[in-house]
Amino acid sequence: MTKNYNWKKIDGGVCAAKGFKANGLNCGLNPNKEKNDLGLVVSEVACDTAAVYTTNKVKGAPILVTKANLEKSGQKSKAIIVNSKNANTCNFDGVEKAQKMCQMASDELSKAGYDVKQEEVIVASTGVIGQILPMEPIANSMSALVAGLSYDGNDRATNAIMTTDTVPKQYAVRFTLGGVECTMGGMAKGSGMIHPNMATTLNFVTTDAAIDAGLLQKALSEIVKVTYNCLSVDGDTSTNDTLTVMANGLAGNHKIETENEDYEIFKAALYEILMNLTKMLAKDGEGASKMLECTCAGAPDLDTAIIVAKSVIRSPLFKCAMFGEDANWGRILCAIGYAEAEFDIDKVDVDLASDKGTIPVCRNGSGVEFSEEFAKEVLGADEIYIHINLNQGNQEAKAWGCDLTYEYVKINGDYRS
Amino acid sequence: MTKNYNWKKIDGGVCAAKGFKANGLNCGLNPNKEKNDLGLVVSEVACDTAAVYTTNKVKGAPILVTKANLEKSGQKSKAIIVNSKNANTCNFDGVEKAQKMCQMASDELSKAGYDVKQEEVIVASTGVIGQILPMEPIANSMSALVAGLSYDGNDRATNAIMTTDTVPKQYAVRFTLGGVECTMGGMAKGSGMIHPNMATTLNFVTTDAAIDAGLLQKALSEIVKVTYNCLSVDGDTSTNDTLTVMANGLAGNHKIETENEDYEIFKAALYEILMNLTKMLAKDGEGASKMLECTCAGAPDLDTAIIVAKSVIRSPLFKCAMFGEDANWGRILCAIGYAEAEFDIDKVDVDLASDKGTIPVCRNGSGVEFSEEFAKEVLGADEIYIHINLNQGNQEAKAWGCDLTYEYVKINGDYRS
Repeated sequence: MTKNYNWKKIDGGVCAAKGFKANGLNCGLNPNKEKNDLGLVVSEVACDTAAVYTTNKVKGAPILVTKANLEKSGQKSKAIIVNSKNANTCNFDGVEKAQKMCQMASDELSKAGYDVKQEEVIVASTGVIGQILPMEPIANSMSALVAGLSYDGNDRATNAIMTTDTVPKQYAVRFTLGGVECTMGGMAKGSGMIHPNMATTLNFVTTDAAIDAGLLQKALSEIVKVTYNCLSVDGDTSTNDTLTVMANGLAGNHKIETENEDYEIFKAALYEILMNLTKMLAKDGEGASKMLECTCAGAPDLDTAIIVAKSVIRSPLFKCAMFGEDANWGRILCAIGYAEAEFDIDKVDVDLASDKGTIPVCRNGSGVEFSEEFAKEVLGADEIYIHINLNQGNQEAKAWGCDLTYEYVKINGDYRS
Repeated sequence: MTKNYNWKKIDGGVCAAKGFKANGLNCGLNPNKEKNDLGLVVSEVACDTAAVYTTNKVKGAPILVTKANLEKSGQKSKAIIVNSKNANTCNFDGVEKAQKMCQMASDELSKAGYDVKQEEVIVASTGVIGQILPMEPIANSMSALVAGLSYDGNDRATNAIMTTDTVPKQYAVRFTLGGVECTMGGMAKGSGMIHPNMATTLNFVTTDAAIDAGLLQKALSEIVKVTYNCLSVDGDTSTNDTLTVMANGLAGNHKIETENEDYEIFKAALYEILMNLTKMLAKDGEGASKMLECTCAGAPDLDTAIIVAKSVIRSPLFKCAMFGEDANWGRILCAIGYAEAEFDIDKVDVDLASDKGTIPVCRNGSGVEFSEEFAKEVLGADEIYIHINLNQGNQEAKAWGCDLTYEYVKINGDYRS
């Protein structure tokens, strides 16, 4: 995934690619009228679509409905309807209401000339679990939501999916397939209940590249494994995790139907989007003051590298130490030690790094002397990099997370009110 | 484990059983002279001994030495030497120094007439990982430590193993085997880096009952699974977890050598000690303001019950909600849903309870209405009970933990200093 393939970062998000419009508004689910709570994305033409969802046994009703829709439509979609403030999960009438949201979006979009079938709508919800979703606010705002769709509506849609997020998360890149310029962009929300397994939180990616739905799913699954699934804010796997990629083909490239060079370029672009959104989610984890990136190199296989990197990123004690800017590397070794993988702990090296410099803290599983003063300086940075080398192979993976702070406890001690 | 077998709680800890003396003092590892940091327990005669240790790949040097000693002595022990403030883990000279501690204890005890071989010494350390253990303070205090041994020294020894614990943890019971009165008592330390796997933290149990070492190990392993291994403060499995049980036989009961009625009574007493120490550890988890006990009933098998109960107890979001006294039961369902076991989530019932009353919050996987006012009252208590019924079997297990508070973050943001 390190090969560049000449993608270029550009501004924007879900509207960066050709033929995608978006909108977002406050429909009244959120009493704060300054905050959008209902979002809509539409493509002018049907999209090949891939999706991954939470592995939690408790699945939000919107996930069940989206899955059924994509099955019925043969992995084709044209629109996304999404609300925040209420997860529509663990409610007896959840599925019915998620279907109703698709139907209302389909009706209103079709009236406006977009011609969207109900099963071409992706539906998602995020917020409190186990509270009945009121439909009136959504029904009453649907025509305004459609009327306000525009090619620069991505900021409004991104605002609509935010919950405890403090910053919007969007990323877009431009790349070339067979001489044809293509674009891909995405938006994501965080920022707690994050310990992905398959996908995390709500994430929507759009592209104008043409790609077969099966290959799109394959690329997505492969890249989610090394991006979103390597993110942990608190170890809690959400009930509503959804990540979709819609490819409408309007760029006009020769459709990707085999695992050729174009497929590799497409995957590199998708990696760039998902990896950067993952980092944004980590940086804006609930209460976070620091982004943590842990690299595990020298692993005998990719899974071991992922398991070790995630084990460190998940450790509450390590996360607290980073909040305290304390080079308490013993907690890193401890978390490496309880990672469920097979390797020799006595070969392990660990460095701590930031833009202030690098401190070797452990060689061959034992401590090495370092300057506490310099360590304090290095750990004073906003982004901390933990480099682990198992020294027993050549596979490498990264995991992302954030420190554990007073603010996390504060936010989650009183979330529902 | 619910059968009573007529054990009776008594005062005391590791000195409650016949023939055990203890002591503890400040040798200078801890700059706070009011706090003991070196402890010693001795039995007048050799004990059949069982032990369980951390499953972390990073194992404290004292664990390696204790294991080797018990192998060499044929599971016999006579003394425990233990220090706090420094874990003697991830140090290049750790094993050598742990052996030295055993040797010094053996020499000094033998000089005083206790006749303890080096391999009959159990050694344990707790504190910061990766700092070189200074031996001088220990060497200089060994003769005073032995001189001060007494039949009521359990409080001093218990104080010596405390780290961030705010209260000492001891428990003792009296029970009868074949008409002979026997006693068992233990001490434990918490209170962070607690997510046991095999055993947790440092725990020492002594008894004057006579029991074969193999059966003692079998009883210990079985009971640890449903007590210590069902405790989680923060999801971090320590590198130094050690739990030992020493049985010196001085009560004079007919030695337990088969799985007879006496064995069941002995196990019930051991369960009572370990379960109560587990609850004390949960209650005094780092920064805890509330003890949480989660019961999972109606499970198809014991492992499922344990996995589900532990998943809830471990969830940082649920722990924060309990700190905030918020009946955010969706987080309980979420944690049940990501538990790695097979069951039907749509049959699950959940109640929240305390000494103020019980609130049903979920039936058949969906929310039920409840009074927020009453919920606030129930969750205002110091001990919160979460009752889960999977309604798909008759197995049951409990797990224990505590809420996640500002204080946890504070303690762990600056532990080393």
